[in-house]
Amino acid sequence: MSVPHTTLFVELGDRRYPIHIGSDILRSSSLLTEAIRGRQVVVVTNDTIAPLYLEGLLQQLSSELLATSVILPDGEQYKTWQTLGTIFDQVLAARHNRSTTFIALGGGVVGDITGFAAACYQRGVDFVQIPTTLLAQVDSSVGGKTAVNHPLGKNMIGAFYQPNAVLIDTATLSTLGAREYAAGLAEVVKYGLIFDADFHAWICANRAALVAREPGAVSYAVKRSCEIKAQVVAADERESGLRAILNLGHTFGHAIETHMGYGSWLHGEAVAAGMVMAVRLSAMRQTVDNTLVTEVEALLTDLGLPTWAPKGMSSSTFLDLMALDKKVIDGQMRFVLLSSLGAAVVADNVREAELRALIDR
Amino acid sequence: MSVPHTTLFVELGDRRYPIHIGSDILRSSSLLTEAIRGRQVVVVTNDTIAPLYLEGLLQQLSSELLATSVILPDGEQYKTWQTLGTIFDQVLAARHNRSTTFIALGGGVVGDITGFAAACYQRGVDFVQIPTTLLAQVDSSVGGKTAVNHPLGKNMIGAFYQPNAVLIDTATLSTLGAREYAAGLAEVVKYGLIFDADFHAWICANRAALVAREPGAVSYAVKRSCEIKAQVVAADERESGLRAILNLGHTFGHAIETHMGYGSWLHGEAVAAGMVMAVRLSAMRQTVDNTLVTEVEALLTDLGLPTWAPKGMSSSTFLDLMALDKKVIDGQMRFVLLSSLGAAVVADNVREAELRALIDR
Repeated sequence: MSVPHTTLFVELGDRRYPIHIGSDILRSSSLLTEAIRGRQVVVVTNDTIAPLYLEGLLQQLSSELLATSVILPDGEQYKTWQTLGTIFDQVLAARHNRSTTFIALGGGVVGDITGFAAACYQRGVDFVQIPTTLLAQVDSSVGGKTAVNHPLGKNMIGAFYQPNAVLIDTATLSTLGAREYAAGLAEVVKYGLIFDADFHAWICANRAALVAREPGAVSYAVKRSCEIKAQVVAADERESGLRAILNLGHTFGHAIETHMGYGSWLHGEAVAAGMVMAVRLSAMRQTVDNTLVTEVEALLTDLGLPTWAPKGMSSSTFLDLMALDKKVIDGQMRFVLLSSLGAAVVADNVREAELRALIDR
Repeated sequence: MSVPHTTLFVELGDRRYPIHIGSDILRSSSLLTEAIRGRQVVVVTNDTIAPLYLEGLLQQLSSELLATSVILPDGEQYKTWQTLGTIFDQVLAARHNRSTTFIALGGGVVGDITGFAAACYQRGVDFVQIPTTLLAQVDSSVGGKTAVNHPLGKNMIGAFYQPNAVLIDTATLSTLGAREYAAGLAEVVKYGLIFDADFHAWICANRAALVAREPGAVSYAVKRSCEIKAQVVAADERESGLRAILNLGHTFGHAIETHMGYGSWLHGEAVAAGMVMAVRLSAMRQTVDNTLVTEVEALLTDLGLPTWAPKGMSSSTFLDLMALDKKVIDGQMRFVLLSSLGAAVVADNVREAELRALIDR
């Protein structure tokens, strides 16, 4: 059975892969079957998503497949080395070989850890992303960044490992909590700021429709976000240049997440606060107007997102945590800043004094 | 300072890398410096190798580098998920970023775990192999297979991740124990059997010189083995075809290692016994003469290696353990067999009855 959908492609040569986007495409067994090459599948999900979608997904699979489900506890605090080890324990106990396909059914945490598990299991097996949160649909399921966290830093252990396909069912967003949905919108806002002033204007004009989860608005936001992400990733898969602009707000955001302990602030919430800091730093450097800071703050507030770091995080705390960020090269911190609305650059000349002025104001 | 050496290349396009082979090349700071691109290095070694070579290696490094040493306990039983986690703990605590270079100083265990650590650390950093055992010099340091073991199978978690360079100092073999040295010779014998009948004849004729570790004989054996390995890996990096012939004796060997517990039999010892089984199976299928079985048994015995599986391992035990091998595809076990002396094929049509006849004889 097939249902209406749109298909984009991430153009990576012989590792090119499709992103299928549509409402109710989880009920399309043909899209799923196309993506599975062997006779074994491992579905990794969490205890929030499993009751909602796992049974339906398994029913779409051929009964001739060996299917093993791994159900993780829900939450960023479980995106760890230890959890990854338990995935391998279960998959090996079920005797999956290297022709198996890992399917990530869930949000960003499930996608990141499952992708990394697929990258490492028997030195790499097939992998399909079925993101069920807005954050995962517009960001983490596309582009092949996989990882787990470490107490000393977020996403410190991982791999670049592209999926064979991404299946985005926007109907799954109806079951998403308000806070998680808003966290996904933070990444949608990011794409407008760094890459597409027209999209930014569209988001500002349609903020009410987005908050109300109007299907037309949500579909367009997901599709345009995936298009931008796919274009950036195709141009720079391993983040040697352009791809770094996708990290707008993330250096600050990761510091917030690390400081608060994973799972306290959602990733998208930390990124929202981090983006305001990045836009403000851009305004301090006079590449964008001060009114953009106010505009972005108002937009994020309307979308239900924080616009400032947690109380009590001093500039010294930020500087200390950011020094361990992956984007630090030879001791020099790098920040994504806006060169104008809809365009971003990576700056490695941000001085400590500027950061202290920004954070301690 | 540079010392005389030979350089081969593993031809992998833009990931082409050199293998430098020579006596005392660990004293050549230029070869080492060439291989390091950033300003940070992590040297991973073990508590047997560290007292012998770590200090000398660190002295070759520029004092401007941030150098962190990670010293693991010696032995295959430590090639685990848990050990890998402790490497990340130490490297993150020392604040290495993604411009760092991991250096593996040691045998196959150190090389495999360090390579996998480099593949995963911040999604992949530079990596240099300095193998100090014969096994690592002729086999595991070349070709980019990295992994850790799992209680349910050897090398089950890992990555294909090529080093930037391999530095082989044959002088380090003088400190190698007799048993470990012999285990390395098992892989040398393998290259003759699967790829080069002339090399096999040379090994047979020079067995006494090899056992006596005569520098000329050892150098030639290392160089010819690396040439063959490099040629096979360049033709098939990810083992979709030809590369599988490098696993002669390994399906049986891995079963022996798993059965005995890692660290009881050395890898090369298990491979030696496994190779005799593979050659005998080939002879049962009449692709090679029965006299080759006797010849290989005598050669391995003269080199100080076992030629039969441990007592008490029944065909049922073997079949059960081999069913989990990575080389099993959709339930079908695959075995590397000789199609003639100096040529190998992968057979997926070996029947259970044949295996029982081979093992229980």
